Amino acid sequence: MKAVILASGQGSRMGYRSKPLLKVAGRRIVDRTIILLKPHVDEFVFVVRSDNREIEDYLEKNWKGKVKYRVVKNPVPERGNGYTFLLASEAVGKERFILTMGDHVYSKEFVEKAVKMRGLIGDFRPRYIDVDEATKVRVKDGRVYDIGKKLKDFDCVDTGFFVLDYRAFEAAERVAERKEVVELSDVIRELKPEVSEVSGEFWMDVDTPEELKRAKKLLIRLSVKGRGDGFISRHLNRKISTRISELLVDHLTPDQATLLAFFVGIASALLVFRNLAVAGIVYQLSSVLDGIDGEIARASLRTSKFGEWMDSVLDRYVDFSFLLAVAVRYFSFYQKYGLGEKGMVALVMFALMGCVMVSYSTEKFKASYRKSAYECINVLNCIPGKRDERIFVEMILCLLNLPVLLLAVIAMLGNARVAATIVAVRAWDVR
Amino acid sequence: MKAVILASGQGSRMGYRSKPLLKVAGRRIVDRTIILLKPHVDEFVFVVRSDNREIEDYLEKNWKGKVKYRVVKNPVPERGNGYTFLLASEAVGKERFILTMGDHVYSKEFVEKAVKMRGLIGDFRPRYIDVDEATKVRVKDGRVYDIGKKLKDFDCVDTGFFVLDYRAFEAAERVAERKEVVELSDVIRELKPEVSEVSGEFWMDVDTPEELKRAKKLLIRLSVKGRGDGFISRHLNRKISTRISELLVDHLTPDQATLLAFFVGIASALLVFRNLAVAGIVYQLSSVLDGIDGEIARASLRTSKFGEWMDSVLDRYVDFSFLLAVAVRYFSFYQKYGLGEKGMVALVMFALMGCVMVSYSTEKFKASYRKSAYECINVLNCIPGKRDERIFVEMILCLLNLPVLLLAVIAMLGNARVAATIVAVRAWDVR
Repeated sequence: MKAVILASGQGSRMGYRSKPLLKVAGRRIVDRTIILLKPHVDEFVFVVRSDNREIEDYLEKNWKGKVKYRVVKNPVPERGNGYTFLLASEAVGKERFILTMGDHVYSKEFVEKAVKMRGLIGDFRPRYIDVDEATKVRVKDGRVYDIGKKLKDFDCVDTGFFVLDYRAFEAAERVAERKEVVELSDVIRELKPEVSEVSGEFWMDVDTPEELKRAKKLLIRLSVKGRGDGFISRHLNRKISTRISELLVDHLTPDQATLLAFFVGIASALLVFRNLAVAGIVYQLSSVLDGIDGEIARASLRTSKFGEWMDSVLDRYVDFSFLLAVAVRYFSFYQKYGLGEKGMVALVMFALMGCVMVSYSTEKFKASYRKSAYECINVLNCIPGKRDERIFVEMILCLLNLPVLLLAVIAMLGNARVAATIVAVRAWDVR
Repeated sequence: MKAVILASGQGSRMGYRSKPLLKVAGRRIVDRTIILLKPHVDEFVFVVRSDNREIEDYLEKNWKGKVKYRVVKNPVPERGNGYTFLLASEAVGKERFILTMGDHVYSKEFVEKAVKMRGLIGDFRPRYIDVDEATKVRVKDGRVYDIGKKLKDFDCVDTGFFVLDYRAFEAAERVAERKEVVELSDVIRELKPEVSEVSGEFWMDVDTPEELKRAKKLLIRLSVKGRGDGFISRHLNRKISTRISELLVDHLTPDQATLLAFFVGIASALLVFRNLAVAGIVYQLSSVLDGIDGEIARASLRTSKFGEWMDSVLDRYVDFSFLLAVAVRYFSFYQKYGLGEKGMVALVMFALMGCVMVSYSTEKFKASYRKSAYECINVLNCIPGKRDERIFVEMILCLLNLPVLLLAVIAMLGNARVAATIVAVRAWDVR
């Protein structure tokens, strides 16, 4: 399948000449479109204004040799985007193709559903856009009955994403013979294609700086969905980390964010030797920052397996460092609690083991079953003892200056969670 | 595709009436055939002697409702297995089908290659059978030219596995019109089917008690192949564990073997408080036993994701227990080495962390990349520090009565291996 990207718009309200080159959450819109459509498309056809080489130059610099694409020039962008569309006709030929707008931002989920559909992709429950500004569609017998921004009575909203064939060009040609300015909605009204539903997924057209900001914010928020977060993460950490991610997404790569959280974590361990309360707070801060790499990665379509792997390994060493620091600094407290040095060393080892094994048991689950334990076994989301929860408790105990209790709680919480995981996995496996 | 299983033989040399019911490495031959063919077949057709209900009863008890099968009765097994085959004709119909012998044992690798082939599946480099006893095949123009046990000049050996169609029944019918006793080789000689090659994989027909023993031994040995074992495992542990597995495969489930190794491991940790040398030897013994669950599971086609998961989690707790025991018993040795109690507690924690993280980093790799790190990154097979190697070194240091050095070596070996893994994964990822 080919994909036609209409990129002849002015973007006048943005103070930019080429809207597809705008960065939304760390990625230019055109890169988003290419990355998301690439697995489904064998050639891209960009229709650009002939008086502006920006997009052409950008594609040549960044995508040449990586994807197959063609640039079609539009000398008369003032004739409307329906006419722009018609210009792609020759480059596309007879086969089925995807048509989408160069200034629209789509989520991966949207694209993966939409590419399997046909006709106009309509959103029947738009959640992320201003419906007043949107192009509305009236549907009858599964096909477009009417389309326009001012429709009072409508069924869905035009997402700017279509799966069409040569008949769409024929319709555009018929309209172009009648009219000088041809809007895409004129073509769709003429064609009356079928309407397919992809509702509730994220997509947006970016017309104003406010919408750009909004799109960024939404992409970061959506990057958190379904992450198997613990209680503290859901109700505290993510509320802070998403705000930080919004600020940093255009400036930091996910790998840099991973390293940032790692170094803050190591710093918190070193701080144990200075001030336990401050150390606890900085540790909790590192736990907040730990969410950022993933948020930035998903929002900017930069997730990588190496990033996921490295993040987990470094997290374990941060947790290790903090426990190590607490154990070393407060080792002699065994006298205070009547533990004996042997009891204390056992406590420390149980704490470290519990802490690492919670993660080990779920990662090994994923390695064995090739599925996320949190998605398969719901009860694992309810048992406490996840990293965000442990670190929060550790902070509280640091603030209360109870380092030995901290070790005891981690030892209990961690190993009890592993024991519960064994029971839960067994029960799930033989179900 | 259907599968025809010829099961009318006498098995006179085995002292059994139904050879398909023989247990080979913990599984009856008929169960092996069903388990391995199940993913590729929608119905099984068993042709059995009408004077023996054993197979029919067994299938009804164990497979009814689990796979679709049909039993065809052969009132005249003395007419030969070519005639037995002909009796399946009605149950099979016109479509392509698999034909195989009820007394043949195949490996998973063999079956997965063979089901994609056509005609007679020939082994051009038989490694596991006695060629003198085998049915030989002369090939010409890609087809069977001649077939028989006594062929002097031959190209491959008949594996008893065929992918045929209705023309094979027609050939059998023609032979049956001419002859009273119809061997399958007569049918093949008449049909002259194409010959497909699956060479060097394990398959065997089991005719004598010696062959039964040999098949068991080979299945156990083959279960070890490509396991990403460390040096000690390859050269010591597996040599012992496979022999134990041969003894136990008919008596122990893989889960029981996992628990056995676990309890021996925990016992070794408890022994630290009695006698370090004995503890070290028992720990090494548990490392040997740790191979058995996997060997039994693979040889008896009983691998399970839960088994794999549980085994790994329990291994971590065995290693933890042993280090814990050493740390607790020998904690006061810090004085001897001038470490200070803080130094000692740090050493203990580094040892535990290194020990767990070697496994964590490779399991997390599998979770992220959905591939085995050992298969992707060859250098990981060369860096020392795998579990089998660590435990062997621990045993040596126990025998030398050097518990603190043991902790230091594990701390170094483990964490250095993790560091090396990070470098290796990074290099591999950006390749």
